[in-house]
Amino acid sequence: MGVVTPRAATSRAATPPKQDRSRATRRRLLESAVACLAERGWSGSTVSVVAEHAGVSRGAAQHHFPTREDLFTAAVEYVAEERSTALRAITPAGRAEAVASLVDLYTGPLFRAALHLWVAASNEPQLGDRVAELEGRVGREAHRMAVELLGADESRPGARETVQGLLDMARGLGLATLLRDDGARRERVVAQWARIVDEALG
Amino acid sequence: MGVVTPRAATSRAATPPKQDRSRATRRRLLESAVACLAERGWSGSTVSVVAEHAGVSRGAAQHHFPTREDLFTAAVEYVAEERSTALRAITPAGRAEAVASLVDLYTGPLFRAALHLWVAASNEPQLGDRVAELEGRVGREAHRMAVELLGADESRPGARETVQGLLDMARGLGLATLLRDDGARRERVVAQWARIVDEALG
Repeated sequence: MGVVTPRAATSRAATPPKQDRSRATRRRLLESAVACLAERGWSGSTVSVVAEHAGVSRGAAQHHFPTREDLFTAAVEYVAEERSTALRAITPAGRAEAVASLVDLYTGPLFRAALHLWVAASNEPQLGDRVAELEGRVGREAHRMAVELLGADESRPGARETVQGLLDMARGLGLATLLRDDGARRERVVAQWARIVDEALG
Repeated sequence: MGVVTPRAATSRAATPPKQDRSRATRRRLLESAVACLAERGWSGSTVSVVAEHAGVSRGAAQHHFPTREDLFTAAVEYVAEERSTALRAITPAGRAEAVASLVDLYTGPLFRAALHLWVAASNEPQLGDRVAELEGRVGREAHRMAVELLGADESRPGARETVQGLLDMARGLGLATLLRDDGARRERVVAQWARIVDEALG
């Protein structure tokens, strides 16, 4: 594909092309898993459907992810990591912007995919424990980052619960978004609660 | 069944037994629909499954609810009405109790059933519009009751958004409850947010 410059050739020598391809395939499968879950829900998202969406053979997909549960928990973990990376890149100008960024985490196709996985997990014992463990880990990470973005002092009584409640509110706003586009309402709620949280955190 | 007293005989004459039975069957179907949705999700909840759960023939079920969408939107509407009735029966001692009662609306099997319906509706066009309409109606009713229970003065700037954000938080807490029983965490968040809302509403 195109001309290989000496620099690219060196970097390709350091990372074998086969490993590169394998990593790209894995990433494509995870992105397709998220897209399928968000668009078709759990019952419509089999490994075959995801492999086809990713343009990968079923065998190659199973080489990366032996079971459907492996594929989808890895997909949500991947989503969570992408969201953390995106959040880390933010340097909010103030608490209002920090609150808006946190709420944004819970809307869009990434949250939608996670929601489908949670609902499916609540009825699928093989999936339940893994998703609960993953959700606990993701939740702790989101909390840690929220504390940092908001500059919250958790030694103050109530500060921890204020931040937790804010993340719960963000999750509830994401759920409301699932059915109808209520961006205008969401903005008003977020603006008011940014003021309230700012005051509560001192 | 048993001895019919004169009083009962009179009331049965006023309301024909056939209509009574029909109403009881309808109610049993709606309760079974909620139970099936909460336990098995949308894909596992067909009209046949619900009819069997209710101990009703498939034909009788279809007499009441011609389509699957009819049955499940009626079920969520029934749930919403039951919740409204329960809320109306509450006379909270203060705002903290009001907040706790509102949050309770969003946990338990009723919310769980509604959540399954929402997620299914986001992927099923026939269901989507009806559920969005229903959700809008239920949401407005929940808001109206929250304003009343909290004694909020919506003419004050920000009061409306404060109440809305609280209901979004309750929804988010309900979603967190889906995967793991975090009753202790929930109680701490609710206690802190009750204080915050009390102050914000003045």
